[in-house]
Amino acid sequence: MLGYFGPKGTFTHQALRTVSDDEAIAFPSVRAALDAVRTGEVRAAVVPIENSVEGGVSATLDELIAGSPLAIIGEIVIPVEFGLYAREELRLEDIRQVLTHGHAAAQCREWLATHLPNANITEAGSTAGAAAEVSRPDSHYDAAVSARVAGRLYGLTELAYQIEDNPGAVTRFVLVGRPGPLPGRTGADKTTLVAYMREDHSGALLEILQQFAVRGVNLSRIESRPTKTTLGSYCFSIDAEGHAHDRRMAEALEGLHRICPTVHFLGSYPRADKVRPSIGIGFSDAEFDEASAWVQGLDRETVTRD
Amino acid sequence: MLGYFGPKGTFTHQALRTVSDDEAIAFPSVRAALDAVRTGEVRAAVVPIENSVEGGVSATLDELIAGSPLAIIGEIVIPVEFGLYAREELRLEDIRQVLTHGHAAAQCREWLATHLPNANITEAGSTAGAAAEVSRPDSHYDAAVSARVAGRLYGLTELAYQIEDNPGAVTRFVLVGRPGPLPGRTGADKTTLVAYMREDHSGALLEILQQFAVRGVNLSRIESRPTKTTLGSYCFSIDAEGHAHDRRMAEALEGLHRICPTVHFLGSYPRADKVRPSIGIGFSDAEFDEASAWVQGLDRETVTRD
Amino acid sequence: MLGYFGPKGTFTHQALRTVSDDEAIAFPSVRAALDAVRTGEVRAAVVPIENSVEGGVSATLDELIAGSPLAIIGEIVIPVEFGLYAREELRLEDIRQVLTHGHAAAQCREWLATHLPNANITEAGSTAGAAAEVSRPDSHYDAAVSARVAGRLYGLTELAYQIEDNPGAVTRFVLVGRPGPLPGRTGADKTTLVAYMREDHSGALLEILQQFAVRGVNLSRIESRPTKTTLGSYCFSIDAEGHAHDRRMAEALEGLHRICPTVHFLGSYPRADKVRPSIGIGFSDAEFDEASAWVQGLDRETVTRD
Amino acid sequence: MLGYFGPKGTFTHQALRTVSDDEAIAFPSVRAALDAVRTGEVRAAVVPIENSVEGGVSATLDELIAGSPLAIIGEIVIPVEFGLYAREELRLEDIRQVLTHGHAAAQCREWLATHLPNANITEAGSTAGAAAEVSRPDSHYDAAVSARVAGRLYGLTELAYQIEDNPGAVTRFVLVGRPGPLPGRTGADKTTLVAYMREDHSGALLEILQQFAVRGVNLSRIESRPTKTTLGSYCFSIDAEGHAHDRRMAEALEGLHRICPTVHFLGSYPRADKVRPSIGIGFSDAEFDEASAWVQGLDRETVTRD
Repeated sequence: MLGYFGPKGTFTHQALRTVSDDEAIAFPSVRAALDAVRTGEVRAAVVPIENSVEGGVSATLDELIAGSPLAIIGEIVIPVEFGLYAREELRLEDIRQVLTHGHAAAQCREWLATHLPNANITEAGSTAGAAAEVSRPDSHYDAAVSARVAGRLYGLTELAYQIEDNPGAVTRFVLVGRPGPLPGRTGADKTTLVAYMREDHSGALLEILQQFAVRGVNLSRIESRPTKTTLGSYCFSIDAEGHAHDRRMAEALEGLHRICPTVHFLGSYPRADKVRPSIGIGFSDAEFDEASAWVQGLDRETVTRD
Repeated sequence: MLGYFGPKGTFTHQALRTVSDDEAIAFPSVRAALDAVRTGEVRAAVVPIENSVEGGVSATLDELIAGSPLAIIGEIVIPVEFGLYAREELRLEDIRQVLTHGHAAAQCREWLATHLPNANITEAGSTAGAAAEVSRPDSHYDAAVSARVAGRLYGLTELAYQIEDNPGAVTRFVLVGRPGPLPGRTGADKTTLVAYMREDHSGALLEILQQFAVRGVNLSRIESRPTKTTLGSYCFSIDAEGHAHDRRMAEALEGLHRICPTVHFLGSYPRADKVRPSIGIGFSDAEFDEASAWVQGLDRETVTRD
Repeated sequence: MLGYFGPKGTFTHQALRTVSDDEAIAFPSVRAALDAVRTGEVRAAVVPIENSVEGGVSATLDELIAGSPLAIIGEIVIPVEFGLYAREELRLEDIRQVLTHGHAAAQCREWLATHLPNANITEAGSTAGAAAEVSRPDSHYDAAVSARVAGRLYGLTELAYQIEDNPGAVTRFVLVGRPGPLPGRTGADKTTLVAYMREDHSGALLEILQQFAVRGVNLSRIESRPTKTTLGSYCFSIDAEGHAHDRRMAEALEGLHRICPTVHFLGSYPRADKVRPSIGIGFSDAEFDEASAWVQGLDRETVTRD
Repeated sequence: MLGYFGPKGTFTHQALRTVSDDEAIAFPSVRAALDAVRTGEVRAAVVPIENSVEGGVSATLDELIAGSPLAIIGEIVIPVEFGLYAREELRLEDIRQVLTHGHAAAQCREWLATHLPNANITEAGSTAGAAAEVSRPDSHYDAAVSARVAGRLYGLTELAYQIEDNPGAVTRFVLVGRPGPLPGRTGADKTTLVAYMREDHSGALLEILQQFAVRGVNLSRIESRPTKTTLGSYCFSIDAEGHAHDRRMAEALEGLHRICPTVHFLGSYPRADKVRPSIGIGFSDAEFDEASAWVQGLDRETVTRD
């Protein structure tokens, strides 16, 4: 059984559907979804990690490192696309009352102003809740702006799709499980971690980055975050290209472990975009092996004699 | 006239109150608030920039650098504290129906479970909207969880305060105006910018950070952000300690301008926490002046003669 | 009047000849030659700085920074080529006694073994002294191995030239004067300095190098040297590509001056090889000017009004 | 049998005496001494590596990496002290003719000017040769300035000692053998290598240094040297604190091997000064082992189940 940060019909729900069509449990918060993984109530859960329309993002990183350890085992990227959903086929000019979440209204502002200039937009607690309300036969709302998954879930008719003002936006989710054997290497993997610095000096971030750079590991995301324990102290949330089974990544992780007071390893898992990183000269596993062999060979067995 | 990302009664509204008690205009989105600054409808606007309960944060950085230039001219930090508000004094055990936003419900989950174990929690579009609804004499909701500013705004009675599960959290806002003379130096200033890198290579971030490090400028926040134009390309959103009038910061900005294809300077302004950064040996204005004089003096006027 | 580290007939003398054909004073040591510049006895002096056959090199750097300041005003590169010189034309097989300095003998070992297998090689105090001795009509030495300048000086006949085993070697000299206006920029210049580090920590050299790297200044030579005052402490002798009048070099020098307890600037002068360095994107004078103008412009004069 | 860069009576000979009192072979050049190690004629040889009075130093590094591999197996540091030696006890005022090498004369200039103001100083091919000449009963030289070892070797009487103008100078030698098992770790070791860079770009040296810095390895000497194959190309001769059996050094060597086209490892051996380096937090062998164990443990064996 899988879980997700609900309610039903959100983009998170849509992300979950890309992983499994089985029944899944919606949880009211990221923490609740992750705690259900921790207790074993669900095997894994889908939670938003970047740019989510429905919020919960900054909570996710914090919750992942609070409590007993969890592991990111997959990544899901979903286009942020909104549709207009009604109980039945309707002409746009007949729509008077639209229900949706404030963020969705903001992201579809231009489309709504152009196509529904006379409609009244009312804010709901979530886009999914708006779709649910519109599905009630006696609702006085004509249509909802929501994710497609919500329109389908509540048996609504899609009147328009991709009505967001900025097409091409995506939002990112992770599938979180309990620690266990890492997902196998695919050659297009990502490693997520949170590294704490020893003290708040200007060089700390440089030292952390150099641990990656000298081993040829590129980062695809870095974000400083205030630590909760010390005022004015920071940690860094990092996505690095590669898998902990890659020699360059393993050595970089060892380096971080030595120079940082704490490193939370949050998982190595396949990238959603399946892009394979270019590996610079000197940083392949074969070159790491060859270098180790060279150093071993410096201590030659043939004894120097008189 | 000032503006802010509304609606009335949010933490952003509370942040605005720390700057001015005059009437202000609430805008339905961060973009709308910033566009009103651009058009001159308002002199400046308060928008969330970090950790906001009500969302809008990631939008803020994007909106600041879209359209015509804006300038951050102040920073406001607000504790994230929730209260329970009703139309009149009530005993907690008599509360049956509570209305609030989903994020607020999540952040007060433990308090609500302990003190209102039998209450029904309903999600509203915003905490401010919840307070507005509760203020209606005929509302069937007994109480709202919201910011204090909303409770006061709607004439509600505060039944409890600081009911959040994680005390001590803060959220950060900025006051945004049109570009003009920079706010004067206070010695406890912050500079915000977005630096684009020339290409997606592992060393780009290091090169950007070294421009600061070699001039002794500490960073208080860094965040990589995908650029919209090129897939897989990044820019960096940075808060640095100091003012563009500090010589070390001015030289670092010049350095960034030379190595980055684009640098968006978003302002130098007083830090909300009034903490003065420690300036390392060699990085004070006096030391910059002294070094310039030394280099000038290398070209001695006394001519060498036979 | 110029001076040089003598005696007459050495490679240093040969280097001096590339600068001036006028009479010049030979000094018995690098210190003596430099002190003569300091006292004004000579206008400038030629001394070896790298790879000299006749020694004196490591002394040169030390002597340049001891005593009152001096300035390198030119660089001279000389091929290390030896010839075989006799009082008159001789067949090689008739040569029995060869006189030369030990280093020259070592560098021509193979040629001497091949062409003069039966000759007896005797060590003199210098190659020039050997040529002088051979020029005496009653000398019992048949030939000298020396620089061409010595052969000519003592009126000897050149029996063979370029007899060194490793052709292509060069040795480098500098022309040293008293501080004054720097030689003008040629676009192919070099700057020499000695930078002391604040303490013996592993990062000191990196910090010094980054002062150059962030301004796009390449180094063409770096050498750590023990300082005389503190056991286990080091300074760095550096040749950097460019002139102190180049903006990138001036800013790098300012940076060094701020982070190092002492920087000895030893001069900017034309490179002997006339090679113009490639200047990376962002590091030309024009780009420095443009960046300064940009930072100035951040503080816009147009006042923001209500 | 050991060899050394002769002749007898030099500081190199004196350095050899600190290693062995057995008979040893003097070779006329550094190359000859090292080739004798290569061919097995001698087991090991002592050659100068830094600041030698008698020259041969820059040759040593070049010769070490030319031909078949050699290994530095020990380091010897000798104070540069000169004495005045005569056939018998003499009053200083009776000395008229002094013989010595030009460098020694330069280094004792002040003493000679003060104590032997009327003596005539003649240059010999070496200080040792000067002592040999003075030891001849019919020599018309009264005294020689040389190393003590030469005075003793030729049965001379020491009239004065430590007559050098700059007391405290030292010169450094290495004991070179054929590659074999590395000398055991003492905790106060040094590793010598020559690293070639991939191309002549400003970042190459920084990249090499960072390989050491991220593993907490300090350098005690660095020197850029032109490579013979490509004009304008450089390699770096480096002494690093620690032993190839130290985990931090082994990993740094592996890193260099991966990023450099060529690395000549020249040996790990006990430091002459027996100073133990301070090892920063995170860089001890125990911490390397602990970090490796941590990374191993990321791949937990307990399988996550439904």
